[in-house]
Amino acid sequence: MRYRLKLIALPIVALLAVSAGFVYVHWSKGGTGAGLYSRHWSPDPVQGYWDPENFYQSTEIVEGIFEAELCVQCHEGITPGIVADWRASRHALNIDPVSCNDCHGSDHQQLRLPTPEVCGKCHGKQHGEFQDEARYGFPSHVLAMERALDAPHFADKPKAEVQSCVQCHSVATKCDSCHTRHRFDAAEARRPEACVTCHSGPPHPDDETYFASAHGQLYRAEGSDWDWSKPLIKGNYKAPTCAYCHMDGGRHQVAHKSLWKFGLREINPHTSKNQVLRKRWIKLCSDCHEESKAAQWLTDLDQERKQAWKKLYKAEAVLKDLRSEELLRPAADERPPYPMGSLWQRERIGFFEGQASAFYNVSAIERDYFEMWYFENLGAYKSAAHGSMAGIKSGHDKMAASLDRIETKAKELRNLFEAEQKGEIAPAPSELWMKGAYTDYNRDHN
Amino acid sequence: MRYRLKLIALPIVALLAVSAGFVYVHWSKGGTGAGLYSRHWSPDPVQGYWDPENFYQSTEIVEGIFEAELCVQCHEGITPGIVADWRASRHALNIDPVSCNDCHGSDHQQLRLPTPEVCGKCHGKQHGEFQDEARYGFPSHVLAMERALDAPHFADKPKAEVQSCVQCHSVATKCDSCHTRHRFDAAEARRPEACVTCHSGPPHPDDETYFASAHGQLYRAEGSDWDWSKPLIKGNYKAPTCAYCHMDGGRHQVAHKSLWKFGLREINPHTSKNQVLRKRWIKLCSDCHEESKAAQWLTDLDQERKQAWKKLYKAEAVLKDLRSEELLRPAADERPPYPMGSLWQRERIGFFEGQASAFYNVSAIERDYFEMWYFENLGAYKSAAHGSMAGIKSGHDKMAASLDRIETKAKELRNLFEAEQKGEIAPAPSELWMKGAYTDYNRDHN
Amino acid sequence: MRYRLKLIALPIVALLAVSAGFVYVHWSKGGTGAGLYSRHWSPDPVQGYWDPENFYQSTEIVEGIFEAELCVQCHEGITPGIVADWRASRHALNIDPVSCNDCHGSDHQQLRLPTPEVCGKCHGKQHGEFQDEARYGFPSHVLAMERALDAPHFADKPKAEVQSCVQCHSVATKCDSCHTRHRFDAAEARRPEACVTCHSGPPHPDDETYFASAHGQLYRAEGSDWDWSKPLIKGNYKAPTCAYCHMDGGRHQVAHKSLWKFGLREINPHTSKNQVLRKRWIKLCSDCHEESKAAQWLTDLDQERKQAWKKLYKAEAVLKDLRSEELLRPAADERPPYPMGSLWQRERIGFFEGQASAFYNVSAIERDYFEMWYFENLGAYKSAAHGSMAGIKSGHDKMAASLDRIETKAKELRNLFEAEQKGEIAPAPSELWMKGAYTDYNRDHN
Repeated sequence: MRYRLKLIALPIVALLAVSAGFVYVHWSKGGTGAGLYSRHWSPDPVQGYWDPENFYQSTEIVEGIFEAELCVQCHEGITPGIVADWRASRHALNIDPVSCNDCHGSDHQQLRLPTPEVCGKCHGKQHGEFQDEARYGFPSHVLAMERALDAPHFADKPKAEVQSCVQCHSVATKCDSCHTRHRFDAAEARRPEACVTCHSGPPHPDDETYFASAHGQLYRAEGSDWDWSKPLIKGNYKAPTCAYCHMDGGRHQVAHKSLWKFGLREINPHTSKNQVLRKRWIKLCSDCHEESKAAQWLTDLDQERKQAWKKLYKAEAVLKDLRSEELLRPAADERPPYPMGSLWQRERIGFFEGQASAFYNVSAIERDYFEMWYFENLGAYKSAAHGSMAGIKSGHDKMAASLDRIETKAKELRNLFEAEQKGEIAPAPSELWMKGAYTDYNRDHN
Repeated sequence: MRYRLKLIALPIVALLAVSAGFVYVHWSKGGTGAGLYSRHWSPDPVQGYWDPENFYQSTEIVEGIFEAELCVQCHEGITPGIVADWRASRHALNIDPVSCNDCHGSDHQQLRLPTPEVCGKCHGKQHGEFQDEARYGFPSHVLAMERALDAPHFADKPKAEVQSCVQCHSVATKCDSCHTRHRFDAAEARRPEACVTCHSGPPHPDDETYFASAHGQLYRAEGSDWDWSKPLIKGNYKAPTCAYCHMDGGRHQVAHKSLWKFGLREINPHTSKNQVLRKRWIKLCSDCHEESKAAQWLTDLDQERKQAWKKLYKAEAVLKDLRSEELLRPAADERPPYPMGSLWQRERIGFFEGQASAFYNVSAIERDYFEMWYFENLGAYKSAAHGSMAGIKSGHDKMAASLDRIETKAKELRNLFEAEQKGEIAPAPSELWMKGAYTDYNRDHN
Repeated sequence: MRYRLKLIALPIVALLAVSAGFVYVHWSKGGTGAGLYSRHWSPDPVQGYWDPENFYQSTEIVEGIFEAELCVQCHEGITPGIVADWRASRHALNIDPVSCNDCHGSDHQQLRLPTPEVCGKCHGKQHGEFQDEARYGFPSHVLAMERALDAPHFADKPKAEVQSCVQCHSVATKCDSCHTRHRFDAAEARRPEACVTCHSGPPHPDDETYFASAHGQLYRAEGSDWDWSKPLIKGNYKAPTCAYCHMDGGRHQVAHKSLWKFGLREINPHTSKNQVLRKRWIKLCSDCHEESKAAQWLTDLDQERKQAWKKLYKAEAVLKDLRSEELLRPAADERPPYPMGSLWQRERIGFFEGQASAFYNVSAIERDYFEMWYFENLGAYKSAAHGSMAGIKSGHDKMAASLDRIETKAKELRNLFEAEQKGEIAPAPSELWMKGAYTDYNRDHN
């Protein structure tokens, strides 16, 4: 039955999508953008550095075909820093060195920025593991750029702001997010700084929560004396870092042990699949701790999650009631539409309905819930997972305050509606909402 | 007269306490919790690690009696990191080494986690000083666990959240909060990271305020090159750290110079007792600075405190007026009771009435004052004490904003009451408040 | 025409200023304060350390004339740390050492704290460049103290709070803000910690935004291994620091490349002057990056600024409308006056009208705009300039929320006014506002 429904639904969805003009567009150098909403944005030049495969264009200021020695000779004067980095790298020190033109090409008018595929030619294991993460879906590194471009708010917001998201999402489309050029050092990428350049702030305060933990403080105090050339295995490090736990043994597949879907949705800790993931964590933690202690920590984390989801579900229920009573103002059809919004506008509440895209152009109470779920809940989760005690407390304090606020606002909305019904107050005119902060000058900047 | 009052009051209090069922319960392994509210909570397994004397139970996975060499031989493979740490420690390098079984025992089915008493057998001076701090009352390290367990909100909140408090409060019941296992290095504990793992975030932003200071920034820039094996005395360090000032000379008695009671209450800077404490600070600061400058800094701090308490007292007066006019909503008897609440519920406003416990289940305006006093005031204080200029400014800005908010809310409460009196508005039903965010699912999780 | 207006305006302004009693007062040791509002404050003793030229008085505890060896001999015991620092300094290691009395004088009753002029005797180039920055106006290091003392709120706020501003502003009046005593190491001042002691928090989150960038994280991870004795030029450092970019080549003139006036006001990126500054940046960035990439980053920053100013101008327009309709409550003449306020009180909205001083005693909606402009906008700017992706996003999110709040409050103010006109509500009594949090106890503390 279910399968038959799909058989029917798929062509209908496709038909609607095509008729509405939303077709996944292959990326092209120059010209329009990329992804589902490619018609709605055009790439900024900087996109060439973040997504070189699709958008990089060589600057063409020098003409000629050059081999390694000549590159180095000239760039020694122009950009000595990167030459020095390369000289200190394994690429240069190899018996058969990996030289400038091996990665960038030789024709200076056609230089390329290396994509993951270029690096993968030699580093096949790492590249394969990185690609393999796609099967866990999003969030994952490998899907980071694609999913950003497929989000309606990518095309709907001023480029100047969206770029603040995309720079980090470029982790999918180039390797130097973690292995900075031109040393490309594994030792560097093992340190937490390689990760927290992106993994900080809401909704993923990995930086703040790790460094607030005993693990993080040990790193802060003593990390500069550790031998970072050692692989990430048992006995080599006094305290774990991002990579030690999430990329244990050097595995380039970060979602491999993801138990709670990063706090984004409730999971059932009693499934056999969950037990498999759990055992991976316990094995890892017992590099230093008793197995039983590791298991208890995970149970404590389950408990924290249970409390968090109780609060979230209460808030979500309030919003869904308001929606069914048509009390959300502005309603979806009174809001500035997303590019995809013209077909079917609907208030989307909660993870499964896709609220991840509902950053903008929603009513105040929906935004409150969004922040509760996406910022406060994830902050509490990361705190519990990484061992930031103050973060757990403040996260749950904030969630309790948000729940209160949402309940108060819901009551006000009902009172307002009642007053409107009695004719005491005139309803706010719809067009009011159509002129939100993001509405007037968006499209022409994308 | 006063003494006779005590003679009468004590048995009455005892009688009331017993009849209400609140008797201080001796702690027991397994079974119920500990402290005044032991009946209301049961220990989570992780409590065994935070309070080993009372709750740790050996995991019993291995049978047998082992001496040091055998322990090391086996754990070299299982947990090589902690073995490496121990090998690098003074415990191992001693002529007469302190081995695994000296601290943990030999019977693997009866292993213990070392308590402060175990460490104190050799480190009697440090342990004695640590214990001695009790005479300064709370806040102090040695009373941290006991006083947490004696706080009503310990039993009243979901365990998952309370644990975020207790993990740090375990500084009272084990030594590895500062001297991490298994190197137990004095050098490590001298560095600020040993402290700020706990001392960060509201209400004790020691981390943020120290690192915002010139002292802290000097440590950040150059601390990794300092010789941390040197004792904490004059001439050994270019800039002071937490321990240099608060544990000068290695003294394990942190409250020894506490001038302003950590900002929690107003003190009189002109008492002779205060002058004694003040001289201790000036002596310490003059390890590097002119005495007269040190004295001036302390006077500046007095001034900052005076401004802070002016703001706090204004806010407190607003609240006490509201209480005497019975305008606080919900009133104490309309709130979900604390475990101790059944006997005598009363709005507690300000430090001396015990507001430290009033985190939850209070009215909005009481919570505002609590946050002003406990978070914003203490943030301003720590900023002034540690030298974070931006923190003083933002702390006082926040306090001014809170005072405004409290005055506005008080006005609204009076208007609301008037409207209720005139019959314009029906009073909110009491039961509304009994279903707060923390009320429904607390007890069964404790 | 314009010039003639000036000819007329200048003497009028002077006449008004003199008749109102505000004349720039020369600073004097002891006695009254300094600057335009010198009559309204008296210096705290600590001011002697922050502005030694004008306020330092030797402590006079020791009598006698001493040369270098005797100074060191005695201070070796009293303050060994600073002696050790000096011994390790270039001052001591010079063939012709710079000794204690060279900077402090020899008469212990008349010791001086060295001013920039004292340091400038040997370090003429650096001192000259530092002084030269004055031609760029404020913000600049060299004018930091003077302009603080010329701000009305300096005299209007409790000293205890104002000092949190002045400590950093003392960068103008002594050199050890960056080169800490007594090593006075260039290497130390090259590290970001030398700067972020002051440059952190709103309104100048340089600390937070730099360390959130890839540049900052590289420094965090590896900076302790870099050779900081090297000058700040191409090829010497793997990642740039504050000083590398803003004081390139060691230039003590930080505003030399200031493109966007630190985000404080909108600039026109198309002027020839701006193109000159832009080329300085591109030249600097191309020490490591492609020129074309550097130029694109600057264009991206222009775009971010454009979005920011659109939001700011919208908010400013709302406030100016309210002002022209006389709907701001409290109005300027209902507020506690600034010292300069007696002559001409007026709501000052926006940068050009001088809102930088409007921290206090303004209406809620004016304060909202002030925070939007001074904290959120500058936070977004610094994030964009320093490469903190999360900061751009959160800055613009906050600005959008502020704009919403301002629009909502404006509507409420209009409704309130209408209700007052209809006689439904009595206007708030003016004296209410005259008792703000800062009004009652200011003057006697200054």
